[in-house]
Amino acid sequence: MSMGTIYGLGLGPGDPDLMSVKADRLLRGARHVAYFRKPGRSGQARKIVNGMIPEGAVEFPMEYPVTTEIPVTDPQYNALLAEFYEAAAAHLRSLSEAGEDVVVLCEGDPFFYGSFMHLYTRLRGLAPVEVVPAITGMSGAWSATGDPITWGDDILTVLTGTLPEDVLARRMADTDALVVMKLGRNFDKVVRALKTAGLYDRAWIVEYAQMPNQRVSKLSENDSDVTPYFSIILVHGQGRRP
Amino acid sequence: MSMGTIYGLGLGPGDPDLMSVKADRLLRGARHVAYFRKPGRSGQARKIVNGMIPEGAVEFPMEYPVTTEIPVTDPQYNALLAEFYEAAAAHLRSLSEAGEDVVVLCEGDPFFYGSFMHLYTRLRGLAPVEVVPAITGMSGAWSATGDPITWGDDILTVLTGTLPEDVLARRMADTDALVVMKLGRNFDKVVRALKTAGLYDRAWIVEYAQMPNQRVSKLSENDSDVTPYFSIILVHGQGRRP
Repeated sequence: MSMGTIYGLGLGPGDPDLMSVKADRLLRGARHVAYFRKPGRSGQARKIVNGMIPEGAVEFPMEYPVTTEIPVTDPQYNALLAEFYEAAAAHLRSLSEAGEDVVVLCEGDPFFYGSFMHLYTRLRGLAPVEVVPAITGMSGAWSATGDPITWGDDILTVLTGTLPEDVLARRMADTDALVVMKLGRNFDKVVRALKTAGLYDRAWIVEYAQMPNQRVSKLSENDSDVTPYFSIILVHGQGRRP
Repeated sequence: MSMGTIYGLGLGPGDPDLMSVKADRLLRGARHVAYFRKPGRSGQARKIVNGMIPEGAVEFPMEYPVTTEIPVTDPQYNALLAEFYEAAAAHLRSLSEAGEDVVVLCEGDPFFYGSFMHLYTRLRGLAPVEVVPAITGMSGAWSATGDPITWGDDILTVLTGTLPEDVLARRMADTDALVVMKLGRNFDKVVRALKTAGLYDRAWIVEYAQMPNQRVSKLSENDSDVTPYFSIILVHGQGRRP
């Protein structure tokens, strides 16, 4: 019997209509569908594909043992997550060995800050794994603003809110176009860094990009009332335009 | 009569199977299909959708008056391109005013260094314009290497080969993950900057990402034999991974 393929299926920013033709087809034909979620939550990736999973498909929710309860700098954080990824990878591998294809739902693009990468590196060489690229959350966000992110020779810098404030401020001050991901509890720090870098007034925030509850606004007009966990901050480049 | 909509239709990196469900549907139902190309060439965007344009649809090739014959720093370059974009936008607008929807084919993601942006800024406010985001060429490229581009807190910098060599080298030396777009005749300069920055041995080059003639290799093993006009160079981040 030949082994099944484990697909890291990029779903894109959130609108199922923006999934690739390939991802749509693989999902609608899936017999096994796995996805990450926080305990007690339905999971953002699973929510995106509501109504698209074939009847009778077996779902495999992979529940994070820890999200923000322990700081990422604590060695226990890495140990707990490593154990979790090992167990999830072992289960997917056993399905593959039983000849079953498995679709793993991934928000955004799997190879761009995605959790699937941690399964991928544990599975490759042991089982057939294929990554289906997708529209990144940041593409969904800049498209939602109605303004291009980069022109001509613009330099784009992508930062995560988890970086130290001085690093954020220095990098923000030294780029043409900017994207900040992973805001969460780093939101206030990111806002301070934008002010230090002189970019606060040019910054936009997109919440729930390409989802029904999408909200797009200048950061300065919305600062106090955002949902940072599903938000991206961006500053548009101003480069050459004939 | 209501005006037609002008769609900036992101096609993604090159495989029609990676187009979004929305882009696929809009294209297969299109009555007017516009695309950029160099004079005498079929055009890369048009090539991607070969066989997908409905019979009877009217094609509108928009031929660049200049590509690399004049340096971009010459004022004549901007003047010629501006005139070209004005004329193309006027034609699309007249179709919209006649009630016709038009699909404009865009390689990659329209708002990420795309030519459609120059039509978009001329049309918005005058005609209904909608941008359909897509998988960027760089996502197609890093997926093709089979390795994630960014982990944990990795900083990603996107550069264009058109930047001066010292700027390229400085930026390359000061990032975790790197993408270099717009190689073309800047290829040798980009390679020198990678060497100065100490990144040459870690750099990958992806030619024709996600197309039938895709080629993926370490830059150091391929340097003398690349097609820089349809290539992306990248260096993977090495960030935190539990």
